[in-house]
Amino acid sequence: MPPLNIPELVDRARDGQPRAVAKLISLVEHAHPRLREVAAALTPHTGHARVIGLTGPPGVGKSTSTSMLLSALRKQGQRVGVLAIDPSSPFSGGALLGDRIRMAEHATDPGVFIRSMATRGHLGGLAWATPQAVRVLDAAGFDVVLIETVGVGQSEVDVVKLADTTVVLLAPGLGDGIQAAKAGVLEIADVFVVNKADRDGADTVVRDLKQMISYGRREIRGPSWRQPIVRTTAARGEGVEDFVRALDEHHEWLAAHGELARRRAHRAASEVEAIALRRLRAELEDLHGGGHLSGLAERVVSRELDPYAAADALLDALRPGQ
Amino acid sequence: MPPLNIPELVDRARDGQPRAVAKLISLVEHAHPRLREVAAALTPHTGHARVIGLTGPPGVGKSTSTSMLLSALRKQGQRVGVLAIDPSSPFSGGALLGDRIRMAEHATDPGVFIRSMATRGHLGGLAWATPQAVRVLDAAGFDVVLIETVGVGQSEVDVVKLADTTVVLLAPGLGDGIQAAKAGVLEIADVFVVNKADRDGADTVVRDLKQMISYGRREIRGPSWRQPIVRTTAARGEGVEDFVRALDEHHEWLAAHGELARRRAHRAASEVEAIALRRLRAELEDLHGGGHLSGLAERVVSRELDPYAAADALLDALRPGQ
Repeated sequence: MPPLNIPELVDRARDGQPRAVAKLISLVEHAHPRLREVAAALTPHTGHARVIGLTGPPGVGKSTSTSMLLSALRKQGQRVGVLAIDPSSPFSGGALLGDRIRMAEHATDPGVFIRSMATRGHLGGLAWATPQAVRVLDAAGFDVVLIETVGVGQSEVDVVKLADTTVVLLAPGLGDGIQAAKAGVLEIADVFVVNKADRDGADTVVRDLKQMISYGRREIRGPSWRQPIVRTTAARGEGVEDFVRALDEHHEWLAAHGELARRRAHRAASEVEAIALRRLRAELEDLHGGGHLSGLAERVVSRELDPYAAADALLDALRPGQ
Repeated sequence: MPPLNIPELVDRARDGQPRAVAKLISLVEHAHPRLREVAAALTPHTGHARVIGLTGPPGVGKSTSTSMLLSALRKQGQRVGVLAIDPSSPFSGGALLGDRIRMAEHATDPGVFIRSMATRGHLGGLAWATPQAVRVLDAAGFDVVLIETVGVGQSEVDVVKLADTTVVLLAPGLGDGIQAAKAGVLEIADVFVVNKADRDGADTVVRDLKQMISYGRREIRGPSWRQPIVRTTAARGEGVEDFVRALDEHHEWLAAHGELARRRAHRAASEVEAIALRRLRAELEDLHGGGHLSGLAERVVSRELDPYAAADALLDALRPGQ
């Protein structure tokens, strides 16, 4: 393999070469040692992309909705990058694979870049890798970055909340779980989409949402923004104009109220913190490799130390002289 | 409220008072500032409990299986604590609530303690709270601690792997996702349970598992242990003797091969590391509260700093003089 030429790679990504974009995201995913050079080369070119997060329970038609939105944005001439977050469970592989295949119609469009983020085995991996992957797509000149995830785990939901605009998809007929949990989704949604709007029960979902919104929890996502509820039937492409309009209106609202800058600062803070934590974690694990943590753990098992005293000793080793 | 008397609370928990046990776990969940005193008081009384993790995809009958296992262990006179890990997604509340209700038959048994672990909003929360909650139940004299989770997110699966014995439940008819992902579950299972064994397709699940096990990946979980496959129909209590026997055999194998000590040291190391990381994280957030992180983040947004340079500055603030 030739040595990695990072400035050239960034230039090629900015020229729109998908292989260069893919390579840069791979460097992020594998925590390449030269990642700080990558970040330094990308940063001057960032700040343009709109970042939109989409989440919702399994079965809601998330992939079909993402695909519909993609087509609409492409018709406007926008270049779109998609980060599809796979919850890295040993039990979820197949279903998501199916989702990916349904997005295949966009695979040959040079204005679209779709990437699954696999995070298995990286603790704190999503919080660490996703903002950096967004940075790659932003620097590569994508106008919109969609972060799509099945909202099954806290870390997945946390990542979607890092978007400029967070879309929560719901649908009728997904069982009591959704109904009971709707209060929780109010906190994270800027825009609600009720998909499968042609089915029985869609009106009930919309009415319940309206009621909860009017019960005054809307202030959670900022002053004066009232979460719109868009009806779609993504499988037939219905409702996409309303969906795009709701996204545009939220973007304008963000910009007009200083919220866009605030959210982007929040995303950057999360990214910086994750990078710092990962470095601290690596240092702790070096101590582990050196046997320090294992030795302390054995003393905890033998009840000679309690885990807090062991953590004190570990931190002392990390920060000698403090 | 009277001041917290930790030694008294620990004594009452060891006397078998469920309210004291519940209070101690609440202290863990809320990261009470006096948690290090709690850990110091508990540690001398730990090391007795067998820790068994149960995981599997939604719909496999996990709660019914846990309930069946609970009944069998109670008949042997064992005291059993259950930690039910709720993946903290806004979309999963209802289904798990239903599961909890199905376990209600054990709610009035003084030899059983059931607790849902809610971790919403705590980053790294599961890895941090679960081993400490196990420590509470162990010190309180429970003979067996069951950690039960829907295997939907990486962090949930990581926690179950901290058990002495990890049980993976599968069932026929759960769709292609399970079949495609079975290779992944081989790595974490010590014992397989194929539930709903009376249904069509159970033989196929068993045969596929056997084939994968014989293809030689069993060394992943330690030398010479061949993962057994137990068939159950938990809704009718069928197969529970085989299930208990498989757990006992694995426990004997662990003890005979030095694996029990190794796994417990691994669990303690994970606990110590999580405590240390949480402390470092809290220090980073104090810097945030002081405006340091937010200031750096704004400079990242304005492209004046890249996120790695900002992380350097943050760590310098955390460790002055290094």
